[in-house]
Amino acid sequence: MIKGKDGSVIPKVVIERLPRYYRYFDWLEDQMEKISSKKLGELMGSSASQVRLDLSYFGDFGQQGYGYNVSKLKKELARILGIDRETHFIIVGAGNVGKALVRYNAFKDAGFKLMGVFDVKPSLIGQRINGVEIYHIDEVKDFVPRENIEIAVLAVPKEAANDVAKLLVKSGVKGILNFAPLDLDLPSDFPVENIHIIDKLLALSFIVKHKED
Amino acid sequence: MIKGKDGSVIPKVVIERLPRYYRYFDWLEDQMEKISSKKLGELMGSSASQVRLDLSYFGDFGQQGYGYNVSKLKKELARILGIDRETHFIIVGAGNVGKALVRYNAFKDAGFKLMGVFDVKPSLIGQRINGVEIYHIDEVKDFVPRENIEIAVLAVPKEAANDVAKLLVKSGVKGILNFAPLDLDLPSDFPVENIHIIDKLLALSFIVKHKED
Repeated sequence: MIKGKDGSVIPKVVIERLPRYYRYFDWLEDQMEKISSKKLGELMGSSASQVRLDLSYFGDFGQQGYGYNVSKLKKELARILGIDRETHFIIVGAGNVGKALVRYNAFKDAGFKLMGVFDVKPSLIGQRINGVEIYHIDEVKDFVPRENIEIAVLAVPKEAANDVAKLLVKSGVKGILNFAPLDLDLPSDFPVENIHIIDKLLALSFIVKHKED
Repeated sequence: MIKGKDGSVIPKVVIERLPRYYRYFDWLEDQMEKISSKKLGELMGSSASQVRLDLSYFGDFGQQGYGYNVSKLKKELARILGIDRETHFIIVGAGNVGKALVRYNAFKDAGFKLMGVFDVKPSLIGQRINGVEIYHIDEVKDFVPRENIEIAVLAVPKEAANDVAKLLVKSGVKGILNFAPLDLDLPSDFPVENIHIIDKLLALSFIVKHKED
Protein backbone atom coordinates (compact mmCIF):
# COMPACT_ATOMS: atom_id res chain seq x y z
CA MET A 1 0.00 0.00 0.00
CA ILE A 2 1.38 3.33 -1.06
CA LYS A 3 -0.17 6.53 0.18
CA GLY A 4 -0.41 9.77 -1.76
CA LYS A 5 0.12 13.38 -0.70
CA ASP A 6 -3.26 13.61 0.99
CA GLY A 7 -2.87 10.32 2.84
CA SER A 8 -5.21 8.26 0.66
CA VAL A 9 -4.00 5.00 -0.87
CA ILE A 10 -2.83 5.40 -4.49
CA PRO A 11 -4.61 2.83 -6.68
CA LYS A 12 -2.18 0.54 -8.54
CA VAL A 13 -3.67 1.54 -11.91
CA VAL A 14 -2.78 5.16 -11.17
CA ILE A 15 0.83 4.20 -10.36
CA GLU A 16 0.95 2.22 -13.60
CA ARG A 17 -0.24 5.29 -15.52
CA LEU A 18 2.43 7.57 -14.00
CA PRO A 19 5.25 6.64 -16.45
CA ARG A 20 2.86 7.44 -19.30
CA TYR A 21 2.31 10.96 -17.91
CA TYR A 22 6.07 11.33 -17.73
CA ARG A 23 6.39 10.28 -21.40
CA TYR A 24 3.83 12.90 -22.45
CA PHE A 25 5.47 15.72 -20.49
CA ASP A 26 8.85 14.70 -21.87
CA TRP A 27 7.41 14.92 -25.39
CA LEU A 28 5.49 18.18 -24.72
CA GLU A 29 8.49 19.95 -23.25
CA ASP A 30 9.81 21.00 -26.67
CA GLN A 31 6.42 22.17 -27.84
CA MET A 32 4.73 24.22 -25.12
CA GLU A 33 5.24 25.90 -21.79
CA LYS A 34 1.95 25.00 -20.20
CA ILE A 35 -0.96 22.68 -20.81
CA SER A 36 -4.49 22.41 -19.44
CA SER A 37 -5.84 19.20 -17.95
CA LYS A 38 -8.48 19.23 -20.70
CA LYS A 39 -5.92 19.35 -23.51
CA LEU A 40 -3.71 16.76 -21.80
CA GLY A 41 -6.72 14.49 -21.35
CA GLU A 42 -7.55 14.80 -25.06
CA LEU A 43 -3.98 13.91 -26.04
CA MET A 44 -3.91 10.90 -23.73
CA GLY A 45 -7.40 9.65 -24.58
CA SER A 46 -8.65 10.44 -21.10
CA SER A 47 -10.70 13.19 -19.41
CA ALA A 48 -9.66 16.43 -17.70
CA SER A 49 -11.00 15.19 -14.38
CA GLN A 50 -9.12 11.88 -14.68
CA VAL A 51 -5.87 13.75 -15.35
CA ARG A 52 -6.43 16.08 -12.38
CA LEU A 53 -7.33 13.20 -10.07
CA ASP A 54 -4.37 11.03 -11.16
CA LEU A 55 -1.79 13.79 -10.71
CA SER A 56 -3.31 15.04 -7.44
CA TYR A 57 -2.10 11.86 -5.68
CA PHE A 58 1.48 12.95 -6.24
CA GLY A 59 1.34 16.65 -5.49
CA ASP A 60 -0.36 19.97 -5.98
CA PHE A 61 0.85 20.67 -9.51
CA GLY A 62 -1.83 22.50 -11.48
CA GLN A 63 -3.04 26.05 -11.13
CA GLN A 64 -6.67 26.98 -11.67
CA GLY A 65 -6.98 28.89 -14.96
CA TYR A 66 -3.32 28.32 -15.87
CA GLY A 67 -2.89 24.58 -16.20
CA TYR A 68 0.33 22.63 -15.69
CA ASN A 69 3.80 24.08 -16.20
CA VAL A 70 5.21 21.44 -18.56
CA SER A 71 8.94 21.49 -17.83
CA LYS A 72 8.41 21.89 -14.09
CA LEU A 73 5.99 18.97 -13.94
CA LYS A 74 8.29 16.84 -16.09
CA LYS A 75 11.07 17.41 -13.55
CA GLU A 76 8.73 16.63 -10.67
CA LEU A 77 7.57 13.39 -12.29
CA ALA A 78 11.20 12.40 -12.99
CA ARG A 79 11.94 12.90 -9.30
CA ILE A 80 8.83 10.99 -8.19
CA LEU A 81 9.65 8.10 -10.54
CA GLY A 82 13.29 8.10 -9.46
CA ILE A 83 14.61 8.71 -12.99
CA ASP A 84 17.03 11.29 -11.55
CA ARG A 85 18.66 8.66 -9.33
CA GLU A 86 20.34 5.38 -10.27
CA THR A 87 18.53 2.12 -9.60
CA HIS A 88 20.60 -1.07 -9.73
CA PHE A 89 19.05 -4.09 -11.41
CA ILE A 90 19.95 -7.53 -12.73
CA ILE A 91 18.63 -9.69 -15.56
CA VAL A 92 18.08 -13.36 -14.79
CA GLY A 93 18.08 -15.66 -17.79
CA ALA A 94 20.42 -15.11 -20.75
CA GLY A 95 18.25 -16.72 -23.43
CA ASN A 96 16.84 -14.79 -26.39
CA VAL A 97 14.68 -12.46 -24.33
CA GLY A 98 17.31 -11.92 -21.63
CA LYS A 99 20.04 -11.18 -24.16
CA ALA A 100 17.87 -8.68 -26.01
CA LEU A 101 17.09 -6.92 -22.74
CA VAL A 102 20.80 -6.66 -21.92
CA ARG A 103 21.24 -4.79 -25.21
CA TYR A 104 18.16 -2.61 -24.66
CA ASN A 105 19.60 0.85 -24.13
CA ALA A 106 16.41 2.51 -22.90
CA PHE A 107 16.98 1.18 -19.37
CA LYS A 108 19.92 3.53 -18.87
CA ASP A 109 17.99 6.60 -20.01
CA ALA A 110 15.32 5.82 -17.44
CA GLY A 111 17.85 5.68 -14.60
CA PHE A 112 18.42 1.92 -14.41
CA LYS A 113 21.91 0.46 -14.22
CA LEU A 114 22.37 -3.18 -15.20
CA MET A 115 24.85 -4.70 -12.74
CA GLY A 116 24.90 -8.32 -13.87
CA VAL A 117 23.23 -11.13 -15.80
CA PHE A 118 22.56 -14.57 -14.31
CA ASP A 119 22.06 -17.99 -15.87
CA VAL A 120 22.80 -21.66 -15.18
CA LYS A 121 24.33 -22.69 -18.51
CA PRO A 122 28.06 -23.39 -17.95
CA SER A 123 29.07 -22.14 -21.43
CA LEU A 124 27.58 -18.70 -20.69
CA ILE A 125 29.12 -18.07 -17.26
CA GLY A 126 31.95 -15.54 -17.38
CA GLN A 127 30.98 -14.24 -20.82
CA ARG A 128 30.05 -10.62 -21.33
CA ILE A 129 27.15 -9.09 -23.26
CA ASN A 130 27.39 -5.36 -23.91
CA GLY A 131 30.14 -5.24 -21.28
CA VAL A 132 27.99 -6.86 -18.58
CA GLU A 133 29.20 -10.15 -17.06
CA ILE A 134 27.11 -13.32 -16.87
CA TYR A 135 27.28 -15.02 -13.46
CA HIS A 136 26.00 -18.38 -12.25
CA ILE A 137 22.64 -18.08 -10.47
CA ASP A 138 24.25 -19.58 -7.34
CA GLU A 139 26.11 -16.30 -6.90
CA VAL A 140 22.95 -14.19 -6.80
CA LYS A 141 22.55 -14.48 -3.01
CA ASP A 142 25.83 -12.69 -2.37
CA PHE A 143 25.53 -10.39 -5.36
CA VAL A 144 22.19 -8.75 -4.53
CA PRO A 145 23.11 -7.28 -1.12
CA ARG A 146 26.68 -6.48 -2.18
CA GLU A 147 25.72 -4.58 -5.33
CA ASN A 148 22.62 -3.01 -3.82
CA ILE A 149 20.26 -4.60 -6.34
CA GLU A 150 16.66 -3.46 -6.06
CA ILE A 151 15.04 -5.02 -9.11
CA ALA A 152 15.39 -8.28 -11.05
CA VAL A 153 14.14 -8.79 -14.58
CA LEU A 154 13.06 -12.42 -14.85
CA ALA A 155 13.53 -13.95 -18.30
CA VAL A 156 13.87 -17.67 -17.56
CA PRO A 157 11.77 -20.56 -18.95
CA LYS A 158 8.33 -21.03 -17.41
CA GLU A 159 9.36 -24.26 -15.67
CA ALA A 160 12.15 -22.54 -13.71
CA ALA A 161 10.40 -19.22 -13.04
CA ASN A 162 8.88 -19.88 -9.61
CA ASP A 163 12.01 -21.43 -8.09
CA VAL A 164 14.20 -18.62 -9.41
CA ALA A 165 11.71 -15.96 -8.27
CA LYS A 166 11.71 -17.38 -4.73
CA LEU A 167 15.51 -17.40 -4.71
CA LEU A 168 15.55 -13.76 -5.82
CA VAL A 169 13.17 -12.74 -3.05
CA LYS A 170 15.29 -14.61 -0.51
CA SER A 171 18.39 -12.86 -1.86
CA GLY A 172 16.89 -9.47 -1.06
CA VAL A 173 15.54 -8.32 -4.43
CA LYS A 174 12.68 -5.87 -3.78
CA GLY A 175 10.70 -6.21 -7.00
CA ILE A 176 10.50 -8.43 -10.09
CA LEU A 177 9.71 -7.54 -13.69
CA ASN A 178 8.47 -10.89 -14.95
CA PHE A 179 8.70 -11.96 -18.60
CA ALA A 180 7.99 -15.65 -17.92
CA PRO A 181 4.53 -16.63 -19.21
CA LEU A 182 2.93 -17.37 -15.85
CA ASP A 183 1.83 -15.60 -12.68
CA LEU A 184 4.55 -16.01 -10.07
CA ASP A 185 3.71 -17.82 -6.86
CA LEU A 186 4.99 -15.16 -4.43
CA PRO A 187 3.42 -13.42 -1.41
CA SER A 188 0.66 -11.17 -2.77
CA ASP A 189 2.26 -7.99 -1.38
CA PHE A 190 5.61 -8.60 -3.11
CA PRO A 191 5.97 -6.10 -6.00
CA VAL A 192 5.74 -7.81 -9.39
CA GLU A 193 4.95 -6.36 -12.81
CA ASN A 194 4.26 -8.81 -15.61
CA ILE A 195 5.06 -8.49 -19.28
CA HIS A 196 3.09 -11.30 -20.86
CA ILE A 197 3.83 -10.97 -24.56
CA ILE A 198 1.67 -13.87 -25.71
CA ASP A 199 -1.32 -12.69 -23.64
CA LYS A 200 -1.13 -9.32 -25.36
CA LEU A 201 -0.84 -10.90 -28.79
CA LEU A 202 -3.79 -13.24 -28.14
CA ALA A 203 -5.97 -10.36 -26.92
CA LEU A 204 -5.02 -8.31 -29.99
CA SER A 205 -5.73 -11.24 -32.29
CA PHE A 206 -9.14 -11.76 -30.65
CA ILE A 207 -10.02 -8.08 -31.16
CA VAL A 208 -8.86 -8.17 -34.80
CA LYS A 209 -10.92 -11.29 -35.56
CA HIS A 210 -14.11 -10.10 -33.86
CA LYS A 211 -14.11 -6.41 -34.68
CA GLU A 212 -17.22 -5.23 -36.46
CA ASP A 213 -16.45 -2.91 -39.33
CA MET B 1 -16.76 -2.73 -30.27
CA ILE B 2 -17.05 -6.46 -29.80
CA LYS B 3 -20.29 -7.97 -28.58
CA GLY B 4 -20.57 -11.02 -26.35
CA LYS B 5 -22.95 -13.97 -26.45
CA ASP B 6 -25.81 -12.00 -24.91
CA GLY B 7 -25.34 -9.02 -27.22
CA SER B 8 -23.69 -6.72 -24.66
CA VAL B 9 -20.37 -5.07 -25.48
CA ILE B 10 -17.37 -6.94 -24.04
CA PRO B 11 -15.19 -4.50 -22.04
CA LYS B 12 -11.60 -4.35 -23.31
CA VAL B 13 -10.25 -5.31 -19.87
CA VAL B 14 -12.25 -8.54 -20.05
CA ILE B 15 -10.80 -9.36 -23.49
CA GLU B 16 -7.33 -8.66 -22.11
CA ARG B 17 -7.97 -11.09 -19.24
CA LEU B 18 -9.11 -13.90 -21.55
CA PRO B 19 -5.59 -15.20 -22.40
CA ARG B 20 -4.90 -15.41 -18.67
CA TYR B 21 -7.95 -17.63 -18.19
CA TYR B 22 -6.64 -19.81 -21.00
CA ARG B 23 -3.24 -20.08 -19.26
CA TYR B 24 -4.90 -21.18 -16.02
CA PHE B 25 -7.08 -23.82 -17.69
CA ASP B 26 -4.07 -25.07 -19.63
CA TRP B 27 -2.20 -25.44 -16.35
CA LEU B 28 -5.17 -26.94 -14.47
CA GLU B 29 -5.86 -29.54 -17.13
CA ASP B 30 -3.28 -31.99 -15.75
CA GLN B 31 -4.48 -31.53 -12.20
CA MET B 32 -8.27 -31.65 -12.08
CA GLU B 33 -11.38 -32.39 -14.05
CA LYS B 34 -13.55 -29.56 -12.82
CA ILE B 35 -13.17 -26.35 -10.87
CA SER B 36 -15.60 -23.99 -9.16
CA SER B 37 -15.66 -20.26 -9.92
CA LYS B 38 -14.76 -19.69 -6.25
CA LYS B 39 -11.62 -21.83 -6.41
CA LEU B 40 -10.62 -20.38 -9.79
CA GLY B 41 -11.10 -16.86 -8.41
CA GLU B 42 -8.87 -17.68 -5.44
CA LEU B 43 -6.13 -19.01 -7.72
CA MET B 44 -6.30 -15.97 -9.97
CA GLY B 45 -6.54 -13.39 -7.20
CA SER B 46 -10.08 -12.50 -8.18
CA SER B 47 -13.62 -13.27 -6.99
CA ALA B 48 -16.08 -16.00 -7.95
CA SER B 49 -18.51 -13.43 -9.31
CA GLN B 50 -15.80 -11.75 -11.40
CA VAL B 51 -14.85 -15.12 -12.91
CA ARG B 52 -18.47 -15.95 -13.70
CA LEU B 53 -19.12 -12.51 -15.21
CA ASP B 54 -15.93 -12.53 -17.32
CA LEU B 55 -16.55 -15.97 -18.79
CA SER B 56 -20.28 -15.36 -19.33
CA TYR B 57 -19.44 -12.90 -22.15
CA PHE B 58 -18.03 -15.76 -24.19
CA GLY B 59 -20.52 -18.53 -23.57
CA ASP B 60 -22.57 -20.52 -21.13
CA PHE B 61 -19.77 -22.63 -19.67
CA GLY B 62 -20.41 -23.29 -16.00
CA GLN B 63 -22.98 -25.49 -14.39
CA GLN B 64 -24.63 -24.54 -11.11
CA GLY B 65 -23.27 -26.82 -8.36
CA TYR B 66 -20.72 -28.47 -10.66
CA GLY B 67 -18.39 -25.70 -11.78
CA TYR B 68 -16.38 -25.61 -14.98
CA ASN B 69 -15.24 -28.69 -16.90
CA VAL B 70 -11.54 -27.86 -17.18
CA SER B 71 -10.49 -29.61 -20.39
CA LYS B 72 -13.72 -28.70 -22.17
CA LEU B 73 -13.38 -25.03 -21.24
CA LYS B 74 -9.71 -25.02 -22.20
CA LYS B 75 -10.68 -26.22 -25.68
CA GLU B 76 -13.45 -23.63 -25.90
CA LEU B 77 -11.09 -20.81 -24.90
CA ALA B 78 -8.50 -22.03 -27.44
CA ARG B 79 -11.18 -21.84 -30.11
CA ILE B 80 -12.40 -18.41 -28.97
CA LEU B 81 -8.82 -17.07 -28.92
CA GLY B 82 -8.04 -18.63 -32.29
CA ILE B 83 -5.15 -20.74 -30.94
CA ASP B 84 -6.48 -23.68 -32.94
CA ARG B 85 -6.10 -21.76 -36.23
CA GLU B 86 -3.01 -20.18 -37.78
CA THR B 87 -2.64 -16.40 -37.70
CA HIS B 88 -0.02 -14.88 -40.00
CA PHE B 89 2.08 -12.07 -38.61
CA ILE B 90 5.21 -10.04 -39.38
CA ILE B 91 7.84 -8.35 -37.24
CA VAL B 92 8.88 -4.86 -38.27
CA GLY B 93 12.28 -3.76 -37.01
CA ALA B 94 15.23 -6.16 -36.82
CA GLY B 95 17.07 -4.47 -33.98
CA ASN B 96 17.69 -6.11 -30.62
CA VAL B 97 14.05 -6.39 -29.64
CA GLY B 98 12.91 -7.46 -33.11
CA LYS B 99 15.61 -10.12 -33.40
CA ALA B 100 14.77 -11.54 -29.98
CA LEU B 101 11.11 -11.73 -30.95
CA VAL B 102 11.99 -13.62 -34.15
CA ARG B 103 13.66 -16.24 -31.97
CA TYR B 104 10.81 -16.31 -29.43
CA ASN B 105 9.29 -19.74 -29.93
CA ALA B 106 6.16 -19.14 -27.86
CA PHE B 107 4.43 -17.43 -30.80
CA LYS B 108 4.15 -20.71 -32.67
CA ASP B 109 2.60 -22.56 -29.73
CA ALA B 110 -0.07 -19.88 -29.53
CA GLY B 111 -1.02 -20.31 -33.19
CA PHE B 112 0.99 -17.45 -34.72
CA LYS B 113 3.10 -18.00 -37.83
CA LEU B 114 5.89 -15.50 -38.52
CA MET B 115 5.90 -14.86 -42.29
CA GLY B 116 8.60 -12.21 -42.59
CA VAL B 117 10.73 -9.56 -40.89
CA PHE B 118 11.08 -6.00 -42.21
CA ASP B 119 13.76 -3.35 -41.77
CA VAL B 120 15.41 -0.53 -43.72
CA LYS B 121 19.08 -1.32 -43.10
CA PRO B 122 20.66 -2.49 -46.41
CA SER B 123 23.05 -4.93 -44.69
CA LEU B 124 20.10 -6.81 -43.12
CA ILE B 125 17.89 -7.22 -46.19
CA GLY B 126 17.94 -10.76 -47.57
CA GLN B 127 19.42 -12.23 -44.40
CA ARG B 128 17.56 -14.89 -42.45
CA ILE B 129 16.97 -15.18 -38.69
CA ASN B 130 15.68 -18.52 -37.49
CA GLY B 131 14.85 -19.34 -41.12
CA VAL B 132 12.72 -16.21 -41.61
CA GLU B 133 13.78 -13.72 -44.30
CA ILE B 134 14.34 -10.01 -43.71
CA TYR B 135 12.72 -7.80 -46.36
CA HIS B 136 12.96 -4.08 -47.04
CA ILE B 137 10.04 -2.15 -45.56
CA ASP B 138 9.15 -0.91 -49.05
CA GLU B 139 7.98 -4.44 -49.83
CA VAL B 140 5.46 -4.54 -47.00
CA LYS B 141 2.60 -3.10 -49.09
CA ASP B 142 2.66 -6.06 -51.47
CA PHE B 143 3.59 -8.59 -48.81
CA VAL B 144 0.69 -8.01 -46.40
CA PRO B 145 -2.20 -8.80 -48.79
CA ARG B 146 -0.25 -11.54 -50.59
CA GLU B 147 0.71 -13.43 -47.45
CA ASN B 148 -2.56 -12.77 -45.65
CA ILE B 149 -0.91 -10.92 -42.76
CA GLU B 150 -3.27 -9.96 -39.94
CA ILE B 151 -0.90 -8.66 -37.28
CA ALA B 152 2.35 -6.69 -37.21
CA VAL B 153 4.70 -6.57 -34.25
CA LEU B 154 6.27 -3.10 -34.24
CA ALA B 155 9.81 -3.00 -32.86
CA VAL B 156 11.30 0.08 -34.55
CA PRO B 157 12.88 3.14 -32.89
CA LYS B 158 10.49 5.69 -31.40
CA GLU B 159 11.27 8.27 -34.09
CA ALA B 160 10.15 5.96 -36.92
CA ALA B 161 7.22 4.31 -35.15
CA ASN B 162 4.33 6.53 -36.30
CA ASP B 163 5.34 6.61 -39.96
CA VAL B 164 5.84 2.85 -40.05
CA ALA B 165 2.57 2.23 -38.19
CA LYS B 166 0.65 4.33 -40.72
CA LEU B 167 2.31 2.43 -43.58
CA LEU B 168 1.31 -0.87 -41.97
CA VAL B 169 -2.31 0.21 -41.61
CA LYS B 170 -2.34 1.36 -45.25
CA SER B 171 -0.86 -2.00 -46.26
CA GLY B 172 -3.82 -3.82 -44.74
CA VAL B 173 -2.50 -4.98 -41.39
CA LYS B 174 -5.46 -5.37 -39.00
CA GLY B 175 -3.76 -4.93 -35.65
CA ILE B 176 -0.42 -3.83 -34.18
CA LEU B 177 1.48 -5.13 -31.16
CA ASN B 178 3.57 -2.06 -30.35
CA PHE B 179 6.93 -2.28 -28.57
CA ALA B 180 8.00 1.29 -29.42
CA PRO B 181 7.96 3.51 -26.32
CA LEU B 182 5.13 5.82 -27.38
CA ASP B 183 1.40 5.75 -28.03
CA LEU B 184 0.83 5.40 -31.76
CA ASP B 185 -1.01 8.17 -33.56
CA LEU B 186 -3.60 5.98 -35.31
CA PRO B 187 -7.42 6.14 -35.54
CA SER B 188 -8.74 5.34 -32.05
CA ASP B 189 -10.67 2.29 -33.25
CA PHE B 190 -7.64 0.63 -34.86
CA PRO B 191 -6.60 -2.36 -32.70
CA VAL B 192 -3.32 -1.74 -30.90
CA GLU B 193 -1.83 -3.44 -27.85
CA ASN B 194 1.19 -1.81 -26.25
CA ILE B 195 4.12 -3.45 -24.51
CA HIS B 196 5.87 -0.56 -22.82
CA ILE B 197 8.78 -2.19 -21.03
CA ILE B 198 10.19 0.99 -19.48
CA ASP B 199 6.76 2.10 -18.21
CA LYS B 200 6.41 -1.23 -16.42
CA LEU B 201 9.88 -0.99 -14.93
CA LEU B 202 9.31 2.60 -13.76
CA ALA B 203 6.00 1.67 -12.12
CA LEU B 204 7.66 -1.30 -10.41
CA SER B 205 10.53 0.86 -9.24
CA PHE B 206 8.12 3.44 -7.84
CA ILE B 207 6.26 0.74 -5.90
CA VAL B 208 9.51 -0.73 -4.57
CA LYS B 209 10.77 2.66 -3.40
CA HIS B 210 7.52 3.76 -1.73
CA LYS B 211 6.27 0.50 -0.27
CA GLU B 212 5.58 0.66 3.45
CA ASP B 213 6.87 -2.40 5.26
